[in-house]
Amino acid sequence: MAKSKFEYVKQFESEDKCLPNCWIVVRIDGKSFHRFSDVHHFVKPNDDRALNLMTKAAQCVMEEYKDIVLSYGQSDEYSFVFKKNTSVFNRRGSKIMSNIVSYFSSCYVFYWSRFFNVQPLQYPPAFDSRVVLYPSDKNLRDYLSWRQADCHINNLYNTCFWKLVQDKGFTPAQSQERLKGTMSSDKNELLYQEFNTNYNNLPDVYRKGSILLPSKEKPVESKPMNSTYPNTKEPHRGSVSFSNSLDHGTKMNPKIDVLHVDLIGEKFWEEHSNILTSR
Amino acid sequence: MAKSKFEYVKQFESEDKCLPNCWIVVRIDGKSFHRFSDVHHFVKPNDDRALNLMTKAAQCVMEEYKDIVLSYGQSDEYSFVFKKNTSVFNRRGSKIMSNIVSYFSSCYVFYWSRFFNVQPLQYPPAFDSRVVLYPSDKNLRDYLSWRQADCHINNLYNTCFWKLVQDKGFTPAQSQERLKGTMSSDKNELLYQEFNTNYNNLPDVYRKGSILLPSKEKPVESKPMNSTYPNTKEPHRGSVSFSNSLDHGTKMNPKIDVLHVDLIGEKFWEEHSNILTSR
Amino acid sequence: MAKSKFEYVKQFESEDKCLPNCWIVVRIDGKSFHRFSDVHHFVKPNDDRALNLMTKAAQCVMEEYKDIVLSYGQSDEYSFVFKKNTSVFNRRGSKIMSNIVSYFSSCYVFYWSRFFNVQPLQYPPAFDSRVVLYPSDKNLRDYLSWRQADCHINNLYNTCFWKLVQDKGFTPAQSQERLKGTMSSDKNELLYQEFNTNYNNLPDVYRKGSILLPSKEKPVESKPMNSTYPNTKEPHRGSVSFSNSLDHGTKMNPKIDVLHVDLIGEKFWEEHSNILTSR
Amino acid sequence: MAKSKFEYVKQFESEDKCLPNCWIVVRIDGKSFHRFSDVHHFVKPNDDRALNLMTKAAQCVMEEYKDIVLSYGQSDEYSFVFKKNTSVFNRRGSKIMSNIVSYFSSCYVFYWSRFFNVQPLQYPPAFDSRVVLYPSDKNLRDYLSWRQADCHINNLYNTCFWKLVQDKGFTPAQSQERLKGTMSSDKNELLYQEFNTNYNNLPDVYRKGSILLPSKEKPVESKPMNSTYPNTKEPHRGSVSFSNSLDHGTKMNPKIDVLHVDLIGEKFWEEHSNILTSR
Repeated sequence: MAKSKFEYVKQFESEDKCLPNCWIVVRIDGKSFHRFSDVHHFVKPNDDRALNLMTKAAQCVMEEYKDIVLSYGQSDEYSFVFKKNTSVFNRRGSKIMSNIVSYFSSCYVFYWSRFFNVQPLQYPPAFDSRVVLYPSDKNLRDYLSWRQADCHINNLYNTCFWKLVQDKGFTPAQSQERLKGTMSSDKNELLYQEFNTNYNNLPDVYRKGSILLPSKEKPVESKPMNSTYPNTKEPHRGSVSFSNSLDHGTKMNPKIDVLHVDLIGEKFWEEHSNILTSR
Repeated sequence: MAKSKFEYVKQFESEDKCLPNCWIVVRIDGKSFHRFSDVHHFVKPNDDRALNLMTKAAQCVMEEYKDIVLSYGQSDEYSFVFKKNTSVFNRRGSKIMSNIVSYFSSCYVFYWSRFFNVQPLQYPPAFDSRVVLYPSDKNLRDYLSWRQADCHINNLYNTCFWKLVQDKGFTPAQSQERLKGTMSSDKNELLYQEFNTNYNNLPDVYRKGSILLPSKEKPVESKPMNSTYPNTKEPHRGSVSFSNSLDHGTKMNPKIDVLHVDLIGEKFWEEHSNILTSR
Repeated sequence: MAKSKFEYVKQFESEDKCLPNCWIVVRIDGKSFHRFSDVHHFVKPNDDRALNLMTKAAQCVMEEYKDIVLSYGQSDEYSFVFKKNTSVFNRRGSKIMSNIVSYFSSCYVFYWSRFFNVQPLQYPPAFDSRVVLYPSDKNLRDYLSWRQADCHINNLYNTCFWKLVQDKGFTPAQSQERLKGTMSSDKNELLYQEFNTNYNNLPDVYRKGSILLPSKEKPVESKPMNSTYPNTKEPHRGSVSFSNSLDHGTKMNPKIDVLHVDLIGEKFWEEHSNILTSR
Repeated sequence: MAKSKFEYVKQFESEDKCLPNCWIVVRIDGKSFHRFSDVHHFVKPNDDRALNLMTKAAQCVMEEYKDIVLSYGQSDEYSFVFKKNTSVFNRRGSKIMSNIVSYFSSCYVFYWSRFFNVQPLQYPPAFDSRVVLYPSDKNLRDYLSWRQADCHINNLYNTCFWKLVQDKGFTPAQSQERLKGTMSSDKNELLYQEFNTNYNNLPDVYRKGSILLPSKEKPVESKPMNSTYPNTKEPHRGSVSFSNSLDHGTKMNPKIDVLHVDLIGEKFWEEHSNILTSR
C-alpha cells in the first residue's frame, strides 16, 4: 500500500493566495434562511434572539482571528474584515473562507439554546462564504456602506410589509402589491400616517445592523487566559454585549464591542481612525 | 442612503468556476483536532463515537447534495466526490466548498450529544475545506487510494504507538523513539510479537476508513418525504448505519450506505461500476 | 540602491498553473484583421498568401515547441494543442500563452515578404492568445470540431457574399441582405444556380482549414541540426508545404505536415491514433 | 456540420479579470536573449541599437494603448503600467498580456532594420509577458524602483565584466572569478583604478534605463490623425526620440517622451505628479 505512488494527486490542488496589501473581506450568508426563519418562528421583521445569536457567533470568530479589525452584520449575513497585511493562513483564500464559515456555523449551533432557550433547533443550518479583496480604504468603506444601505432598505421595506400583514390583516401578496413602486419617503410616510410609527425611532440594531470591534480597553482579568482554547467553557462569558448596556451588572464579552451606528458618514471613521491604519 | 452608489463594489468579487467535465472533490479537515481530541478524551488510537459522528455529518451532507456519488472519511477528514457533470451552485468553487464545510460543521455540533451522550461539547470545532479537480477516472481513484493508504499508514503507526503507551507504560517520547525508522512489516511484527495482535484482525473501519454511497435500493417510505427540509426531526432516522450490522433491528439511514472496504484494488470499482459512469 | 528593499513586490505575482492531465490548447487570433486584410488588399474571400503565412508561422511554433501534437488554423486564427502531460514552462498558463503568441507574431512579420513579395507590410500586426484546458479526449475533439465547423460556416457565407459582390456587383449591404436568414442548403444552391459553383469542389484548405502534425517519418538530414537555434537561416527551408503538392520539387518543411482534411469524423482520428495517446 | 453541437466547449474558457482599482503592470521579457545577443553581435555591455529598438517597440505599444501611463525598460525587458481604472479589454488579464507582447514582438521585427541597418535579423525573437497587480501607489513605485535598481546592479557588474574581458584580455571565467563577492563600492573602485572610468559618467540610459511617458504638450499636427491605424507608414515618424536630443532637426516621436533619470527618489514623482493621479 505505497502511499507515494498516489501522492502525485496533490499536484492537482491549486494555490489561491490573496493579492497582498488588500483588505480581505469574508462575507458569510445564511442558506435558505427564509425557510429556516419560518420553521423556527422568527419574529418578523426582526427577531432579537436570531440577531443576537448571529452576533454571538461573529464575536467568537473575532476572538479566534485577531487580525479581524471590524465585522459588520445584518439579517442572516456577516462580513469580516481582515487587516490589509494579515498573513492568516498565509493569505490562502480557501483556507480563510472555509475556516471562518465553519467556525461561525459551529458556534451558531453551539450557542443556539442560549438565545432560543427551550425552543429547539430543528435542523442544522448552513451558511456560504466568499472572499472579496478591496485595494483601497475607500473601496472598503464603500463595501461596508453598501451592506449598511442594504440593511436600511430591507428593514424599511420589511417593517412596512409586516405592519400591513400583522396590524392590517393584509395577505403577503396584498402587502407586496401595496408597496410596489414606493420610494423610501412613501414608506416613511406610510409608517407614520397609518401606524403612527416614526421609522427613525426604531431600534438602531434593526436600522443600522451591528458593527463589531475589538475592545480598546484591556479588560481586567482575574486569571491568566488560556489563549489557545476558545473561552467557551465559562457560561458567564460570551453572551452578546450591547454598547451602552449593562448585562446583569457585568460586561459579558469584554473583548469585542458591539455598535449599532452609522458607518457611511465620516464620523464613525474619525472616531475609529485606528481601523484603517491597522498594520 | 443610495445603495446604488456603493454597488460597484460587487465588481471586486471574482468568479471561480470549476473546469467542466472534471470530478469535483471537496475535502474537509478538522482544525487543531489533536487538541480537540484531548479535551474531549477521545479513546486512542480510534474513538468510535468520534468516527461515527464524522460519518453521521457526512451522511447529512450527502442527503442534501444528491450529486455526491461517493464520500470517503478517516480520522478527522472527509472527502466528498461530486459527479463530473454536476451543476451544483453553477460549479462555483467557493460556494461549493463553503456550503459543504458549513453544513458539515453545523451537523457535527447538532448531533454531538447523540454520539457523546452526557459528555458535553466543550467548544465549537472548526474544519477547513478545499476544492480539488480531477480530470480522469484514474486520477480520482488515485486520489481516493491516496487517502485510504494514508488511513492505513497512520492507523498502523497509531496502533503501535498507543499499545506501547497504554500497555507498556512508554512515554509518548519513548514510544515515538521506538517506532522511528520502522517499516510496515516491523510494525506488524511488533504488534504480533509483543501484543499478540494481528493487525489484519482489527476492525475494518479503523484500517480502511469509511466509504459512503447513496443506497441503490429505494427504501420503503410510509409517507411522502419533504425533500426540501433535511430530515433531522425524526430521531429514529439519521444514526450511523454500519454495514453488516443491525441497529435495533432496523436500518437507520436507509439512504446512505457505509462500507469499510478496500477501494484501492479493482474489486470495489467492479462492484460499484455505476460510480464512475454517473452522469 | 538596495534592490532587496523592493523585492517584496515579487510576491504580488500570482501562480497560474494549468490543471495537470488536461489538454492545453492555446488559441491565437488576429486583432482587427478585418482592417488589416483591407489595408493589405487580401484577396477575398480567401488569400492564399495570408493563409500560407499563418501556416508558416504556426509551423515555426511547432518546431520550437515539440510538445505540440496538433495545430489547427483557419482565417486569422490558429490553435495549438499541447500533449496532456506536457511540462512546458512548468505548465504556467501565462508563460505558455505569451511565448506562443509572441513567437507567432514575430514569425509572421519575419516571413511576410516570403509570401507577399514586394507588397510591403504596412504596420505590425497583433494577435491575442488564450489558454483553454480540456480534460477528456472527447472535449478536445469537440473543440477542434467546433473550430472546423466554424471554418466551414464562415467560408460558405463568405464565398456567397463575395460572389455576389464581385460577380454581380452587389454592394456589401445588398449582399448581406440577400444572405440574411439563409440556411446552408440555400447557400449551396445559390452558388450552384447563380454561379455554377459546386461548393464541395472548392479547395480543401478553404473549406477545412489547415491541420499541422509533426511528421512521422524522420527526414534525412545531411548535417547535424543545431536544435537550439530555430532553423530560419536556411532560406530553402521553412516554406509552407502543401499536402499533395510539390514545392519546386522538394518537400520544404519536412518536420511538420500540413493536411486539409475533415477532423470531425472518426477517420482522421483512426489514421492518426497516436495524437490522443501521446505522452 | 452543426456548430452548435460543439459550442459547449466555450464553457471551458475561464474568466481572468484583474481586480479593479489596482495598477496593472505588464512586463515583457526577452526569451533566450543571451543567445540572441551573441548571434546578432550585440556590443557589450550595452548595444545602443538594441536598446533603441526595444524603446521604439515600447513607444508603439504606448501609442496603441492610451491607458498606459508609464513604461520602463532596461536590457531585454519592458514594463507597461496601465492606469488604475483602465477598462482596456474589460481588464481581462490574458487579453491584455497577450495583445501587448504580440504587438511588441511584431514591432521589434518590423523595425529591426531601422536600427540594425544591413545587419539582418537571423531568426524571429520571442518575449514572454505577465500581468502583475499593485494595489497602492507605493507598491507601484517600489515595483519600478526594483526594476531600476536591478538595471543599476546588472549594469555595474556587466561594465566591470566586459572591461576586464575587452581591455585586459580576461576570459569570461577569469572575469567572473575576479568579480566574485565584490560590493558595489569595490566595482566602482575597480573601474576607477584600473580603467580610469567614473561609473557615474557613463550614459544615463545604461545606468538608469528608459522611462517612457505620454508627451504633455500636444504636438502640432498638419493633418488629421487616423487614430485607428497605427502610424507606421510615415517613415519620418516613429524613430526613438531621446530627451534633450534633436534627431535630424525634428523631434521624431512627439507623442512619447523618453527619459533616463532616477525614479527611485521623490524628485521624479514630484515632477510627474500626474502619473499617480491619472484616472
